[in-house]
Amino acid sequence: MSRIEKGVFIGLDWGTSSLRGWLFDSEGHVLVARTNGHGILHLPEGGFPAALKQITDGWPAVPILACGMVGSLNGWRQVPYLDCPVSMEAFDSALDRAPDISIVPGLRLTEKLPDVMRGEETQIIGALVRRSDLADASLIILPGTHCKWARISKNRVVSFRTFMTGELFSLLMHHSILGRGSTIPSVHDEEAFRLGVRTSREGETGLSAHLFSARSLMLAGRIKPEGVRDYLSGLLLGDEVRCGLALLGDQTDDKAVLLGEAQLCRRYAKAFEILGDPVPELLGNTADTGLFHLARAAKLIESDTE
Amino acid sequence: MSRIEKGVFIGLDWGTSSLRGWLFDSEGHVLVARTNGHGILHLPEGGFPAALKQITDGWPAVPILACGMVGSLNGWRQVPYLDCPVSMEAFDSALDRAPDISIVPGLRLTEKLPDVMRGEETQIIGALVRRSDLADASLIILPGTHCKWARISKNRVVSFRTFMTGELFSLLMHHSILGRGSTIPSVHDEEAFRLGVRTSREGETGLSAHLFSARSLMLAGRIKPEGVRDYLSGLLLGDEVRCGLALLGDQTDDKAVLLGEAQLCRRYAKAFEILGDPVPELLGNTADTGLFHLARAAKLIESDTE
Repeated sequence: MSRIEKGVFIGLDWGTSSLRGWLFDSEGHVLVARTNGHGILHLPEGGFPAALKQITDGWPAVPILACGMVGSLNGWRQVPYLDCPVSMEAFDSALDRAPDISIVPGLRLTEKLPDVMRGEETQIIGALVRRSDLADASLIILPGTHCKWARISKNRVVSFRTFMTGELFSLLMHHSILGRGSTIPSVHDEEAFRLGVRTSREGETGLSAHLFSARSLMLAGRIKPEGVRDYLSGLLLGDEVRCGLALLGDQTDDKAVLLGEAQLCRRYAKAFEILGDPVPELLGNTADTGLFHLARAAKLIESDTE
Repeated sequence: MSRIEKGVFIGLDWGTSSLRGWLFDSEGHVLVARTNGHGILHLPEGGFPAALKQITDGWPAVPILACGMVGSLNGWRQVPYLDCPVSMEAFDSALDRAPDISIVPGLRLTEKLPDVMRGEETQIIGALVRRSDLADASLIILPGTHCKWARISKNRVVSFRTFMTGELFSLLMHHSILGRGSTIPSVHDEEAFRLGVRTSREGETGLSAHLFSARSLMLAGRIKPEGVRDYLSGLLLGDEVRCGLALLGDQTDDKAVLLGEAQLCRRYAKAFEILGDPVPELLGNTADTGLFHLARAAKLIESDTE
């Protein structure tokens, strides 16, 4: 039996700008992993079915479960959110099932200031599967275009908040006077990053005025043009860490972890360190673990351990 | 003698994206006003001299004084900043004189978090000329792409701060997921603006997380897609007013004024009102008054009152 033939389940993390797929064996080991640019806003000719065919090309015809923006208004089909606070088990029975592809519901906060996530809930589930010690009380941080901070209490997501850090950084570097004035390509400037993080600590000034200091510091010769990028990154991450801890942090004995792409998570960890806050542990991307766990819990596939 | 022939002085407000010109008579009355798109980044063929020729076409050959980005690194010629705190009289002797065009120096703050302005200093001078009661103690707010807040004490600019509000709004509306999701053209949505301003008051959440609420409130049906624009405007202005007052406001008996384009200033005034703060008086654009005053004080033109 070939390696591919051992595949019993396909998991997909289908976001706005990228599509990731994993073929799993019956024990949850990843046999093959693939990534391409077919996010829901960048589909190939033939749309969702064609993208699905391509990412699973050559893989066996096994159950498929997807998380992310594929379940949004602009996705393959719209799947209603689950409302926060929600237990991790609630997702098992809330999967939107279909013969071709099942979809994980997103998570919604219905407070005065509402919020939404699609895809990150599956990473959170994966993190709690991998690390059961996080279930009682923890803070889970998921850096990205729209970074999510989620508070876990007694195996439930009790609250969360989205920060536009990644998108703001991209807008400022590509379209603003700050980015236009800086040399491209930038070099990594550790000192500029540190200065950005430290400057963000003075919260009274506010982000909007802090951002302009990227220009005035450059004009004053105190950051180099090629360091503007790291200064802005430091400002935005520092601001996010300060606000995130104020909103969702907990002074009691509490675990914090960072999920997602390693390089970005290391950058966040450094911001915590510069601010003098306890540095969260880096867990990597846990969407694959979350998808496999959900598929088994929802009996999309046979449990190997029963 | 024709109206044009009475002209004794030309003032220019030469910014990044627009060029405004005024022809004055000897008493400081504006005989003709012109505006075009020849900001320093949008010059016609022939560059600065051609743009100058065009904006002054048909006007007499009289002394010319310009303020704004025309004196920056990317301007006609770079004019050194004056350093804050600075008295209004310091500008008289600091004009960069030349036969074709004289230029007003910008203003620089050399604190730990530095800042710069070019053009707004001339509006501030104009405001203090028009309203001598502002000279002792006041707060001058100049909305725009990069909004400036300046603190006046004993006829000096003692501190100021730039907020990127206007540029952030434009970036978010044109390039972000928030703007892309909203209907264009937007309709004015007073209720969405109010909600944005009120939401901004919870400073602990921070601007980056507040911005994403434009999306989550729309998804929740609590603001209309065509109201996203006004919600964002309310969020950004509310945030700026909160931070600006914290940084540069003064609890003592103190005058505050808004300078610049009337419609934008009214929007700021409304944000103050919603936040329950004393509403600044609207003075309009005072660059013309500032330029004429400087020209006379620096003896670029004969004083009519001597």
